Amino acid sequence: MASPAVSDIPAFWAVVPAGGAGTRLWPLSRAAHPKFLLDLTGSGRTLLQATVDRLEPLTGDRVVVVTGAVHADAVRDQLPGLRADRVVAEPSPRDSMAAIGLAAAVVEREDPDAVIGSFAADHVIPDAEAFREVIREAVEVARDGHLVTIGIEPTFPATGFGYIRAGAPLAGAPTALHAVEFVEKPDAARAREYIDSGEFRWNAGMFVVRAATLLDLLARWHPDLAAGLRAIAANRSRLDEVWPGLTRIAIDHAVAEPAAGAGHVVVVPAPFGWDDVGDFASLATLLPGDGAVRVLGNPGDVTTVDAAGVVVAAGGRRVAVVGLDDVVVVDTPDALLVTTRARAQDVKAVVDLLTAEGRTDLT
Amino acid sequence: MASPAVSDIPAFWAVVPAGGAGTRLWPLSRAAHPKFLLDLTGSGRTLLQATVDRLEPLTGDRVVVVTGAVHADAVRDQLPGLRADRVVAEPSPRDSMAAIGLAAAVVEREDPDAVIGSFAADHVIPDAEAFREVIREAVEVARDGHLVTIGIEPTFPATGFGYIRAGAPLAGAPTALHAVEFVEKPDAARAREYIDSGEFRWNAGMFVVRAATLLDLLARWHPDLAAGLRAIAANRSRLDEVWPGLTRIAIDHAVAEPAAGAGHVVVVPAPFGWDDVGDFASLATLLPGDGAVRVLGNPGDVTTVDAAGVVVAAGGRRVAVVGLDDVVVVDTPDALLVTTRARAQDVKAVVDLLTAEGRTDLT
Repeated sequence: MASPAVSDIPAFWAVVPAGGAGTRLWPLSRAAHPKFLLDLTGSGRTLLQATVDRLEPLTGDRVVVVTGAVHADAVRDQLPGLRADRVVAEPSPRDSMAAIGLAAAVVEREDPDAVIGSFAADHVIPDAEAFREVIREAVEVARDGHLVTIGIEPTFPATGFGYIRAGAPLAGAPTALHAVEFVEKPDAARAREYIDSGEFRWNAGMFVVRAATLLDLLARWHPDLAAGLRAIAANRSRLDEVWPGLTRIAIDHAVAEPAAGAGHVVVVPAPFGWDDVGDFASLATLLPGDGAVRVLGNPGDVTTVDAAGVVVAAGGRRVAVVGLDDVVVVDTPDALLVTTRARAQDVKAVVDLLTAEGRTDLT
Repeated sequence: MASPAVSDIPAFWAVVPAGGAGTRLWPLSRAAHPKFLLDLTGSGRTLLQATVDRLEPLTGDRVVVVTGAVHADAVRDQLPGLRADRVVAEPSPRDSMAAIGLAAAVVEREDPDAVIGSFAADHVIPDAEAFREVIREAVEVARDGHLVTIGIEPTFPATGFGYIRAGAPLAGAPTALHAVEFVEKPDAARAREYIDSGEFRWNAGMFVVRAATLLDLLARWHPDLAAGLRAIAANRSRLDEVWPGLTRIAIDHAVAEPAAGAGHVVVVPAPFGWDDVGDFASLATLLPGDGAVRVLGNPGDVTTVDAAGVVVAAGGRRVAVVGLDDVVVVDTPDALLVTTRARAQDVKAVVDLLTAEGRTDLT
């Protein structure tokens, strides 16, 4: 007997913001081919493709990707099954509220009862089925008019993410909790307190909400921005005229934080693994290999002598590492990076130096 | 007034053994283009060319290079001023006594009173004039029938070189001393004793001796080898027939050590800097740069962030090093090495692993 097809969720739309330079993943990630366009895990699918793959069982073809105009063609190439008009090209960067809000406004016109879920194009979630279970609950809760966020169970006291503080359970929901507040990236001591308290979860920037609810909340605190986004959705030919005047603001500040303060936000705890692949130390944990060496690319390209914890992004040449632990080697045709897992955050400084040199061909 | 030309030394011949794989300089040095064929200092001249450049004011065109048959064409290409028959091609490796002895026998036939000086093709001596002053004295002493070796003033208690123990001054010579004995590479404690005693100098493998004296000394301890070498010199067409039967032995063991025991060896102290460029730590000290970074190639190809003591052999791509001190990065078209100055000796292990893999294209 064939297993029954898992049904998608009626009127549920995915919004996939595809942006961010990923400068800490230089020289793999460049301005011209940023992180979301890369296969960083060796899966055969880019982060963007894997994000859409993960969502399609829930959304069918109801996926909208919002990206910079320069990347729109690359996004369409990577997602040949996506209708061309479902790739929304931003004429210029205007931060996450405008990007997600425009997609929400476009979806709202097509389907006034739509629930949207916003999921960045450059995150990794190995257990797609666990992810989808959480999203199913989030959509149910969102239909009641809540702004639902996904709270990732922290695995260490990270200082690189914002946190969500959860409160009482939401009546009638299997796992959802009221969200008390969003807090910014903490210092190490505060991050430790957050973890120890058990009340805090990582804010992975995933929101599930009725499109109309999101725009109505936005209209409460940023009426001009909400009106501008709805005006563009009503007449897409006005994009280039209206877009440059829109307020630059992150969705957290524009809507999520004030909505939490007003009691409108719910958090669904996420028991699945999640990684934003922020740097090569983070990437290392996602790569095949062992304690000796992990390789993105062909493991046969790497030779180690008395070296452990080595991370190599192979570029087709032989890479030999002798007598160095926890070293990161990234081999690309025009640039080569050598650093350590511990210093992976500082790779951004190389991009800054190259930019100062005017070597935009390398950034 | 033009400065007077420095005259060469009549009947003085240079013998330049050009061999050695330089496996600790992989991936720059390969079986097909070993160390002596490379410009490792960024001078614009290969080590072989620089060796001949250094000698020519003393020898004019009296230079014989002995090299493996596979490298003979490359040697002739690099030394277009050398007569083709002055490149002696060894049919197979038979160690240094056969190589130098064959050159001596060839020179002896052309000039029975010749003094030869043997100088490896892959060493670096920055102060060529100081070198030539020492050699002038060595040649004078050699004319009296001594086997003269050059004793390098040690700058640290090296365990990678053999040593020469010197005794009483040689009567009538400006600086030469009687050589008491040759000693093998010492351990660290013994090397320290050697340095502290003031009696020991590094054996750089440089010998100055009448060609006939060398072969006569050889005939005393290895008569068949001496006879074979003289037979080939008398009839070069017998090379392929005689060569394979010659004893494999180093010149130190074959002649220098027994001759020292018999009181025939003199050492001329060398106050000049000398380096055998044995590995990348050694190479680093010869490269332009500063405490932050030393580069073989274009310094503009290297970007460092919070890194000191970095050594880069640049290959035309941008090399970025972040947060690693004393790291060595060698960038070539098909292979990339990452190690540290302290582990530079262990690079040979990579070549062993590649050989075991059958990847002779990379060795």
